[in-house]
Amino acid sequence: MIRVGIVGATGYAGAELVKILSSHPHVCLTSITSRQYAGTPFYEVFPTMRGRTDLVCENFDIDSFSDKTDVVFTALPHKLPLSIVPKLIEKGKKVIDLSADFRFSDVATYEDYYQPHTAKEILEKSVYGLSEIYYERIANSCLVGNPGCYPTTVLLPLIPLIRNGMIDCDFLIADSKSGVSGAGRSVALGTHFCEVNEGFRAYKIDGHRHRPEMEEVLSKEAGKKINLTFVPHLLPLTRGMLTTLYTKVRGNHSSDDMMQCLETFYKNRPFVRLLPDVNQPPDVRHVQNTNFCDIGLHLNKETGQVVIVSAIDNLVKGASGQAVQNMNIMLGFDETTGLI
Amino acid sequence: MIRVGIVGATGYAGAELVKILSSHPHVCLTSITSRQYAGTPFYEVFPTMRGRTDLVCENFDIDSFSDKTDVVFTALPHKLPLSIVPKLIEKGKKVIDLSADFRFSDVATYEDYYQPHTAKEILEKSVYGLSEIYYERIANSCLVGNPGCYPTTVLLPLIPLIRNGMIDCDFLIADSKSGVSGAGRSVALGTHFCEVNEGFRAYKIDGHRHRPEMEEVLSKEAGKKINLTFVPHLLPLTRGMLTTLYTKVRGNHSSDDMMQCLETFYKNRPFVRLLPDVNQPPDVRHVQNTNFCDIGLHLNKETGQVVIVSAIDNLVKGASGQAVQNMNIMLGFDETTGLI
Amino acid sequence: MIRVGIVGATGYAGAELVKILSSHPHVCLTSITSRQYAGTPFYEVFPTMRGRTDLVCENFDIDSFSDKTDVVFTALPHKLPLSIVPKLIEKGKKVIDLSADFRFSDVATYEDYYQPHTAKEILEKSVYGLSEIYYERIANSCLVGNPGCYPTTVLLPLIPLIRNGMIDCDFLIADSKSGVSGAGRSVALGTHFCEVNEGFRAYKIDGHRHRPEMEEVLSKEAGKKINLTFVPHLLPLTRGMLTTLYTKVRGNHSSDDMMQCLETFYKNRPFVRLLPDVNQPPDVRHVQNTNFCDIGLHLNKETGQVVIVSAIDNLVKGASGQAVQNMNIMLGFDETTGLI
Amino acid sequence: MIRVGIVGATGYAGAELVKILSSHPHVCLTSITSRQYAGTPFYEVFPTMRGRTDLVCENFDIDSFSDKTDVVFTALPHKLPLSIVPKLIEKGKKVIDLSADFRFSDVATYEDYYQPHTAKEILEKSVYGLSEIYYERIANSCLVGNPGCYPTTVLLPLIPLIRNGMIDCDFLIADSKSGVSGAGRSVALGTHFCEVNEGFRAYKIDGHRHRPEMEEVLSKEAGKKINLTFVPHLLPLTRGMLTTLYTKVRGNHSSDDMMQCLETFYKNRPFVRLLPDVNQPPDVRHVQNTNFCDIGLHLNKETGQVVIVSAIDNLVKGASGQAVQNMNIMLGFDETTGLI
Repeated sequence: MIRVGIVGATGYAGAELVKILSSHPHVCLTSITSRQYAGTPFYEVFPTMRGRTDLVCENFDIDSFSDKTDVVFTALPHKLPLSIVPKLIEKGKKVIDLSADFRFSDVATYEDYYQPHTAKEILEKSVYGLSEIYYERIANSCLVGNPGCYPTTVLLPLIPLIRNGMIDCDFLIADSKSGVSGAGRSVALGTHFCEVNEGFRAYKIDGHRHRPEMEEVLSKEAGKKINLTFVPHLLPLTRGMLTTLYTKVRGNHSSDDMMQCLETFYKNRPFVRLLPDVNQPPDVRHVQNTNFCDIGLHLNKETGQVVIVSAIDNLVKGASGQAVQNMNIMLGFDETTGLI
Repeated sequence: MIRVGIVGATGYAGAELVKILSSHPHVCLTSITSRQYAGTPFYEVFPTMRGRTDLVCENFDIDSFSDKTDVVFTALPHKLPLSIVPKLIEKGKKVIDLSADFRFSDVATYEDYYQPHTAKEILEKSVYGLSEIYYERIANSCLVGNPGCYPTTVLLPLIPLIRNGMIDCDFLIADSKSGVSGAGRSVALGTHFCEVNEGFRAYKIDGHRHRPEMEEVLSKEAGKKINLTFVPHLLPLTRGMLTTLYTKVRGNHSSDDMMQCLETFYKNRPFVRLLPDVNQPPDVRHVQNTNFCDIGLHLNKETGQVVIVSAIDNLVKGASGQAVQNMNIMLGFDETTGLI
Repeated sequence: MIRVGIVGATGYAGAELVKILSSHPHVCLTSITSRQYAGTPFYEVFPTMRGRTDLVCENFDIDSFSDKTDVVFTALPHKLPLSIVPKLIEKGKKVIDLSADFRFSDVATYEDYYQPHTAKEILEKSVYGLSEIYYERIANSCLVGNPGCYPTTVLLPLIPLIRNGMIDCDFLIADSKSGVSGAGRSVALGTHFCEVNEGFRAYKIDGHRHRPEMEEVLSKEAGKKINLTFVPHLLPLTRGMLTTLYTKVRGNHSSDDMMQCLETFYKNRPFVRLLPDVNQPPDVRHVQNTNFCDIGLHLNKETGQVVIVSAIDNLVKGASGQAVQNMNIMLGFDETTGLI
Repeated sequence: MIRVGIVGATGYAGAELVKILSSHPHVCLTSITSRQYAGTPFYEVFPTMRGRTDLVCENFDIDSFSDKTDVVFTALPHKLPLSIVPKLIEKGKKVIDLSADFRFSDVATYEDYYQPHTAKEILEKSVYGLSEIYYERIANSCLVGNPGCYPTTVLLPLIPLIRNGMIDCDFLIADSKSGVSGAGRSVALGTHFCEVNEGFRAYKIDGHRHRPEMEEVLSKEAGKKINLTFVPHLLPLTRGMLTTLYTKVRGNHSSDDMMQCLETFYKNRPFVRLLPDVNQPPDVRHVQNTNFCDIGLHLNKETGQVVIVSAIDNLVKGASGQAVQNMNIMLGFDETTGLI
C-alpha cells in the first residue's frame, strides 16, 4: 500500500484531499499536517469526517513526515512550498504541489507575479499537471505543479482546438465565475457570508495571477505569444466554477468539426464530458463533488463567433481531484481510481 | 392626484410596481388587475404588503378600469398588450408597457422573434423607455415600451461611448448574469429551488430575444448594422443583474477619457453611478432594491481591450423602477420621485 | 450479482438511489422506470450522471421489470405503491418502499391521513425500516416501509432514551427544519426559487402526516399513547434536515447518563454519530451527501429540560441512503456497503 | 430639523441606521463615527449608499460630536457604551443605545452575563425600548436600551397573552432562527460564506445572553420568576429572524380568544401584523427590509399546546428600525415616520 501524506490539510483543498484519499482503494493516508490545528483530530476541524478518519493534525517535520510517506501533496499558500518541496524531492518522494510555485516554466513570469523563486533547480523537473493534456509527462514525473482552477476551465477546451488550428488565438476572452471556496478558508471581509450572499461581482479585472499561468501554456501550445483577456467573478455558492470563452473560428470549420475535434481528443479521458446539446450547456450543479469537466460549444455561423462553456468543481477537478488524478497517473493506477 | 392602474399586478414586475407606487407621493394607485387572483386582496398574494395596501385584484375590464385611471402600467406576458394597449391609448391614457410589444421600431424584427404585431399603428407612437438616454422623447410620449433588463445593462454604458466614437462597434460581447426573478413567477422545473440553488449556467446562448432588441438600438446609435454576441447566465440569487461587456477602444483614448465621457453624459442623471475604482467594481448587492445602475470600466492599454461592468436590480432599474422613472418623466415630476 | 430495479427513478429520492446504487460494489442496477421520462437516458434527466450510467428510463411493466430484478426500490408518491408492491412481493422480490404506504401498523391511522389501504394483507409483512432500531426484523423481511425523513431525525435519538426510561414521554416537542428537496421535484409555487430563497417559514403546523407516523412508533416504544407536538419548517437550502427536540429528563439522570445510554445503544452502528461537545452541535453541512445521523444533547440541570439536536441529509439517511442500508441488511451485506 | 448622530456607523446595525435616517423626513443625519473607517466616505464602506449620503466617518470626540447632534444612536459592541452614554446624557442628548448595556433593570443579572456595570446611575433612567409594549415610558425617556433581536420576537407575542393570563408561564420554549447579519460584520470563521451556506445549526444552546434579557422582562410581566428554554439557530440567509414558541393555554381559552387578545392589544400598532390563517404563517421573506413583526398562532385543542410563530428582520425591527421607531416616539413623531 502506497503511503500518502498531506502538508497543509486544513484549508479547503487540503480537506478535500483528506476526504478523497481516505476512501482511495490503493493508497493509505498516513500523515496530515496543519500549523494551526496541530494536535487536533481532523474530524474536529471538519466534523463531516467524524467516523471516517482518525488522523490527527501534526506539525510539519521533514524527517518524521518523510518516514511515513511515499507520495506527498503540498496544499499550502504559494511561497511556502519553495522551501519544503525541494526537501521532499531530495528524500525521493513523489510530490504534487497545489500552489503556483511549480506551475511556470518561465521563472521570470513567476517572479513578476509572485516572488523570487528559490527552488529553480527543481522547477525544471516539474510538470504542469493538466492531467488530460500532459498525461505522459505526468506519468514520468516526480514533481507536478497542479494547475489553477481557472486555468483548468480555460485550457481543457482550448488546447485541442488550438492544436488543430481551429480557432483564432489572437482573440481570446475568458469570462469566469467561481464559487467562494476558491478564495480559501482564511477569514476576510470579502468572504463574510453577508458580503457574498445574494451578491455577484467581478474582481481583479485583468489583474488575476492565473492569467500569466494560462498565457504561458497557451503561448506554448500556439507557438506564439498569446494574450488572454480574463475577468474572474465571484458566485454566491460554495463549490463550482464556470468559464464562458469567446473566440473566433478559423477557416470555415463548422460547429460539428470543433465538437468532433474535442471528442477525438478526449475519447479515452473519462473526466472530460462533451455536451452535444447547446440547449443543455454545462451547469456547475452537474459537476459538483465530481472530477468532471463539462464542455459545451456554440458557433455563430454568420459572425464566426465561438462561445465555449466549461464547468468544474473548483475544489475537485480545479484542485484536489485533479491532484489525485495526477497521483494515479504517476503511480500507474487507472486515472479514475478513488474519484467520481 | 394622478390615478394609476396596473394591468397584471401579480407577476414579479407587477408586484414591484405595487410596492413602489403604494408609497409614491404624487400618484394614487387605484386599480390593479390579475386574472389568476381576481377577488383576492393583494396582500394575500404578496404578504409583505399586508398593512401597506388594501387593494383587491380585479379582472381587467377596459371600461371600469379606464374610469379609475389616468396612467396605466401593463405588466403582462408579451402578446397580451397588443390587444389591450391600443384600447387604453384610445381612451387617452398614458401607458408604460413592460413587455417587448412596443420596444421595437422595426416590425419585421419584432415579428421574427415574437409573433405578428397587431397594433402597428400605435407602435409608431411608442418611445423606447431607456430613461437616461431618451429622456426628452419619453417626456413627450403617451406610450413607452419599457426596456428589457439585459438591454438596460448593455445600453446604458455603451451608448455614450458609441456616440462619442470611443469604441469599436464591430467588436461587442455581452456576458450577462441574471437573478432568478428575471424568469418570472410562473412555475417551471427550471426555476425550482433545487434546480437553481448552488448552480450556475448559461442559457439561450446566442438565442435570447433581448439580443435583437439591443442590436436595433445599438445599430441606430452607431448608424450601421451592429452584431452583438450575447450570452445570458442564471445566477442563484433572487434579484440582480450584472453584465460584463468586452469591446475595443478606438484611437488612443485612455481609460480616463472614457470615464470622463460617461461622467459628462450622466452628470445630471442620479440613477447612473460611475465607479472610479477598478478594484471596487459593481456588485449586484449594491444596487438591490434600488433604481441605480452602477458602471465600472477598465482598459488594457497594451491590447486596447475594454472591459465594462454594469449592475442593476433586474426588477427595479431592469423593469418596474425604470417604468416608474418613465412615468415621472412623462408626468413632469422629478425623475427620482418615489424611487431609491 | 444481485439485480436491482427502481420504480420511480426521476424524483429526487429515485435519482439519489440511482447515484448510490450505480457505484454499489455488490449489486447491479438493471432497470429504472419513469412515466414522465420513459425512453430518455437517465443522464439527460440528471446530467450529473452523464458518463456514470447508461440506463434509459422505462415505463413500468410488471413482467419485464420482474424478469430483470431481484430487489426493488419503489420511490413513488404514496397510493401508487398500493397496487404495485403486492405484485412485486408475489413475484418473490424483496421490496423497499419509500412512500408512507407500508410504514404504519395501524391501518386506521394510515387511512385517516392518507387514503383507503388496498393492500392490507401484505402490510402485515412489512417492517418499519428504521435501520439501527429494527435491524433484526429488517434482516428477515421481504418488505420494508422506509421511514419518513422527519421521523428518522426524531426517532433515532428518542427511542434509546425511551427504552431506558430516561425521558418524560408526556412532554415531547419536535421543531424540525428541512431543505427544499424534501418537497420533491414537482413544480409548484411553493418551491419556486424566489419564494424560498432568503426565506424561512413553518408549514403544516400540527398538521403534517409524519406526526402520526412518529406517534405510532413512539407509542409502541413507550407502551402508551404518545402525543408529539411537531412543527416542520422550510430551510432555504437543497439538502439537509435538522430537528431540535424538547423533552424533560426523568429522575435525576445526568447529561452524561443520557449520552452514555445513546453511546451504548449505537456502539456498533456507524451511521449514528454522537457529538460529545454541546458547543459543536450538529450542522446539516456535516451530514450532507452522507448517510450519517449526528446527535447532540444538552440537559439544563436546574429545570430538567432536555434539548436534543439531530441532523441528517434528508435524501440520504432520510430516504435513499437508509433504503440502501436496509437493502444491505436484507441481503446480509455490511450495512455500510456502498454508502458514506 | 432635529440633528441626529450615530456612534458606530459601520457595523450592520449602524449602516442600517444610516440608510433609514438618510431618508427620514423630520431629522437630519449630521455626524457618523467609526474607529476603523475614520476619514472614509460612508459610501466607500457601503457602496449601496453612493449618491445617497456624502457623510464621512469620523473618530468619536465627545465635544465636537455633541455640538452637532441632538439625538444619538450608539451602535457599538457592549461595554463601550458604558463610558460614552453617560457623557452624552450629561450633555443633554437623547440616546438610543443598541447594545445590551442599558437593557437590564437588575444590575446583578447584567454583570453575571456581561461585565461590571460602570454606569449604574444612568441605568435607572433607561427604558427598555420594546416600542409597542413600553410606548409611554419611551415617550418620556431620554435613554432607551434598545431590545435584542431575539427578545423582540419572543416578547411581542407573549406579553399580551401573559398580561391577560392566557398562557402557562411555567412552560415556555423559544426555538429561534436568525440570519447571519445578526452575528455582526466582524470577520470570523463562523461567518465565512462556506461555513454557513447550505448549513444550519443550533448554537449557544441554553447559553445565549438574550435569555436572561428575556427572562427579566417576562418575570416582570408575569409577576414571578420565569424560566425560558431558548435555543438559537443560524439560518443560511442574510436578514431575517423567526421564532417558534411553545407554551400551554390556561383555562379553556380558544385559539380565537388568544388572537382576539393580540388584536385588541396591537390594534393601533401598525408594525405588528397578526396573521389570521394558520396555513399562511409568518415567513422572514415577508418582513425583510421592513419594521414589521408578523405573528401567527395555533392551539391544539386536545393537548392545550400552543404554537406561536413570529418573524422580523433582525436588522430592522430587531435593531435599527425599532431604534428609529423609539426615536420617533421620544420626539413625538408618528412612530412609523421614515419606516416601512
